Amino acid sequence: MSKINISEKFGLFSEEWTPKIIAQTNGQLVKIAKGSGELVWHQHENEDELFIVFKGHLTLQLRDQIIELSPGEMYIVPKGVEHCPSATPDTHFMMIEPASTKHTGKLESDITVSTEDQEWI
Amino acid sequence: MSKINISEKFGLFSEEWTPKIIAQTNGQLVKIAKGSGELVWHQHENEDELFIVFKGHLTLQLRDQIIELSPGEMYIVPKGVEHCPSATPDTHFMMIEPASTKHTGKLESDITVSTEDQEWI
Repeated sequence: MSKINISEKFGLFSEEWTPKIIAQTNGQLVKIAKGSGELVWHQHENEDELFIVFKGHLTLQLRDQIIELSPGEMYIVPKGVEHCPSATPDTHFMMIEPASTKHTGKLESDITVSTEDQEWI
Repeated sequence: MSKINISEKFGLFSEEWTPKIIAQTNGQLVKIAKGSGELVWHQHENEDELFIVFKGHLTLQLRDQIIELSPGEMYIVPKGVEHCPSATPDTHFMMIEPASTKHTGKLESDITVSTEDQEWI
């Protein structure tokens, strides 16, 4: 493989809440996404989900607390924990999660991207 | 868990080539380390090793190529691939790898930190 410039990868797409895969390591996919506004409440029964923010501001609403992430901050939503991400305009973040992780968990919404349709860039 | 400010975590230690664990997700450990000069040639038989650089410049010598990583760049050394990391003074980087991954693979050198001795910060 070649090295990956994360900033360049963010320049390759503009869709929001549409994770793009940039690498795979030990069965985990490294994904980047842009967000703005609110996604949907969902959970991943069997997978932890790591978020690292690179630009903007990502809010992870949980049922019992709200996590506010600025650039350089990260959080892991443990498996089974309901969460609803929301973001200020043009927020850039990375997620690391198993290849099996579905975009919005069991919930299928209009903005859900199926595992098969998540694109490598 | 609380959110993690990656920069603050780098401020908590000064040792070089001594990975500190900051999080665990899906059986993978998220570690940060500082480096300067050269580590040693080694390999991890069963684990890929993801590197993301935050500050300075990290060089990953492989037997057939040299990967040069500046801040915002990442690379995954595939399992079984020999590598020798080197870095400019005060380079800061993150590694994500399975909890089973040994610091310098099968090689035990003076600077090897055993899996059991890798510290959570």
